[in-house]
Amino acid sequence: MISREDMVALDAADALAPLRDKFELPDDMIYLDGNSLGPVPKGVSERVKDVVEVQWGNDLIKSWNVHDWMGLPQRVGDRIAPLIGADQGEVMACDTTSINLFKLLAAALELRPDRNVIIGQADNFPTDNYLAEGLIRLTGGRHELRLIEGDDIIGAIDAAEDSVALVFLTQVDYRTGYAQDMAAVTKAAHDAGALILWDLCHSAGALNVSLNAAGADFAAGCSYKYLNGGPGAPAFLFVAKHLQDQVQQPLSGWHGHAAPFEFERSYRPAPGIVRQLCGTPSVLAMSALDAALDVFDGIDMSVLRAKSQVLTSLFIDLMEKRCGGHGFTLATTRDQTRRGSQVSWHHEMGYPIMQALIADGVVGDFRSPDILRFGFAPLYLRYVDVWDAVTVIERVMLEQRWDKPEFHLRAAVT
Amino acid sequence: MISREDMVALDAADALAPLRDKFELPDDMIYLDGNSLGPVPKGVSERVKDVVEVQWGNDLIKSWNVHDWMGLPQRVGDRIAPLIGADQGEVMACDTTSINLFKLLAAALELRPDRNVIIGQADNFPTDNYLAEGLIRLTGGRHELRLIEGDDIIGAIDAAEDSVALVFLTQVDYRTGYAQDMAAVTKAAHDAGALILWDLCHSAGALNVSLNAAGADFAAGCSYKYLNGGPGAPAFLFVAKHLQDQVQQPLSGWHGHAAPFEFERSYRPAPGIVRQLCGTPSVLAMSALDAALDVFDGIDMSVLRAKSQVLTSLFIDLMEKRCGGHGFTLATTRDQTRRGSQVSWHHEMGYPIMQALIADGVVGDFRSPDILRFGFAPLYLRYVDVWDAVTVIERVMLEQRWDKPEFHLRAAVT
Repeated sequence: MISREDMVALDAADALAPLRDKFELPDDMIYLDGNSLGPVPKGVSERVKDVVEVQWGNDLIKSWNVHDWMGLPQRVGDRIAPLIGADQGEVMACDTTSINLFKLLAAALELRPDRNVIIGQADNFPTDNYLAEGLIRLTGGRHELRLIEGDDIIGAIDAAEDSVALVFLTQVDYRTGYAQDMAAVTKAAHDAGALILWDLCHSAGALNVSLNAAGADFAAGCSYKYLNGGPGAPAFLFVAKHLQDQVQQPLSGWHGHAAPFEFERSYRPAPGIVRQLCGTPSVLAMSALDAALDVFDGIDMSVLRAKSQVLTSLFIDLMEKRCGGHGFTLATTRDQTRRGSQVSWHHEMGYPIMQALIADGVVGDFRSPDILRFGFAPLYLRYVDVWDAVTVIERVMLEQRWDKPEFHLRAAVT
Repeated sequence: MISREDMVALDAADALAPLRDKFELPDDMIYLDGNSLGPVPKGVSERVKDVVEVQWGNDLIKSWNVHDWMGLPQRVGDRIAPLIGADQGEVMACDTTSINLFKLLAAALELRPDRNVIIGQADNFPTDNYLAEGLIRLTGGRHELRLIEGDDIIGAIDAAEDSVALVFLTQVDYRTGYAQDMAAVTKAAHDAGALILWDLCHSAGALNVSLNAAGADFAAGCSYKYLNGGPGAPAFLFVAKHLQDQVQQPLSGWHGHAAPFEFERSYRPAPGIVRQLCGTPSVLAMSALDAALDVFDGIDMSVLRAKSQVLTSLFIDLMEKRCGGHGFTLATTRDQTRRGSQVSWHHEMGYPIMQALIADGVVGDFRSPDILRFGFAPLYLRYVDVWDAVTVIERVMLEQRWDKPEFHLRAAVT
């Protein structure tokens, strides 16, 4: 039987353990919601203060040159690139995930003018499908968004034959934590003559995402979850090098122009990834993200991924051993190769249970209709945190601490 | 003849003079580029620090409820509304100007399905026309972007008769500072059965923009110029109340959904202005803008506008009296009712002259091919600043201080 002492021993042997000191974490909290909003990396507050008071405050408009604010989105993109298996010049930090997905959807569909099907999953994060709907509506309904129930994406691609223009998937399911096999699905899409677009929101920064090894075409994701860039931090997008100059995205703003400060009358896309830019980026938000990425310096993503797998496996084991009789049903796969960095459980009292856990310092979140989500960010979580979280969960269940009226009141954001 | 003492007297009598103390302005600079990037309002740095360290740092994911991060874009929009003549619930702070223009262009064209012409100006800020090009290209080329040379917009509307779907204009020309007559042009667009979309980037926060008085349909603008929200601060958009539920913008992300946290499978637009949202906004950038707007509390925009007119008129007068023989040609109209809050001059040596001025502490900017721009933000500029700026300009010209090799080297951002 595993004990807390075993967890202490695992922490002592963990090469990543020192990284926890690079974060500002509240003392009285076990934070298992880094899959929703990462905590503050040390150095971010100082960087933002410097940007406000020195760069903006003293250097004002000159900062676009002196501090190279113009180059910031690509510099940040180049720092994200190695975390997702991309090369330099293939990633841009910009806009939001939703907007970046719109750009890439439009760009991809233009490359397959004779095909009209977008294959997605019903369980894609909703905004992904909403954006596809919006694009299809805007362009006159020529395309069909075909949403697959379940995980047999490859079967659906094969069945659609040569009508498939694009396969558009969330790599890690936001509710169940199921992780797609990026290499296999990408190959199936390409074998069918289709392109692929990956939403990396729930994988970037926790999994060893390998876009180029898989031969992926397009990807986008947010930086406020496992990349810890702050609430609503700038998103990123990826376009494989060989496609960059073939595509023209429709949000053709001046920052994506070949010569934005020539103020030409017609749009002329910049070469490479730069044409994916649109308007003026928030320098404050982009600088906070840049500072946040320092914690990834020198990290081997496969080591990070391995720790994530052990954390989630231990959590499943301990929950089943210690909370097995309390009505939780595992929503996440036991196959750790197909598991993101989260573990989810169905429970009919999921909402009040999560509120009781948060009140007792274990912060996860709830997703309708009945899912409790626990994210395990391997950068800053300890093995003892897994133990201690299960201890709190066990107490909440044994003592029915969730059965209070205030825990049933739904907040605006769950 | 006007003297510096007269300027001191004007400052002493200026009811807006105390507002200067609400900004962090470098001591050794006369900042005449608030039309490009406003300076830091006091309180912004403290607010951002609080958002990073307390809201994000301690309250983490709970902040979406506890600090109502969800409501922030509309709260900020409601604070911008009175500055542009809009009502509560008509303005949303979100995304970038370019992206907001794309949303509104698409929404407007859908309301006029039987018409195919967008009337714009060749001298619109380039990103405006680039976005219209991008939308037209995406939707199959059915629409024509008709760019008018010169200022006879009303004549162009009349000539186009019933083909005009939308009139799309920059209220204040970014180079010449020419200010359109919003009421007259809006009326002409409506008389022709068309809708109107105003780009307020160079007017919001300096002019007494009166969207509802003019009957305007749509508007968008940035908050990093006269609204002082910081570099790349969130933009805003306006949709007249009676149109809000008639339009559906194509960037249909989850924050514009009627129930974003129900995670429904299909997009269902929120009522009112909220459907204009798309992805997750940057809470840091949005909070900085919120704090920056404090300086406008209690300001009468017509008083602000009047000061702006006097500042720019005095600058024109003094330049002509003291620098009349140095080759400057006025690019801005002498009609102060048609003048934005800037004065521009043509000069064949415009670029090196501006670099020499910046080196001597008078910060304006240069726009190709030969325009020197000087912005007069009435919130924080003094009448003596006008005098002192002209003194520096006169010295730069008399001593030919611009004639140094380093002042001819073009920076990436001009």
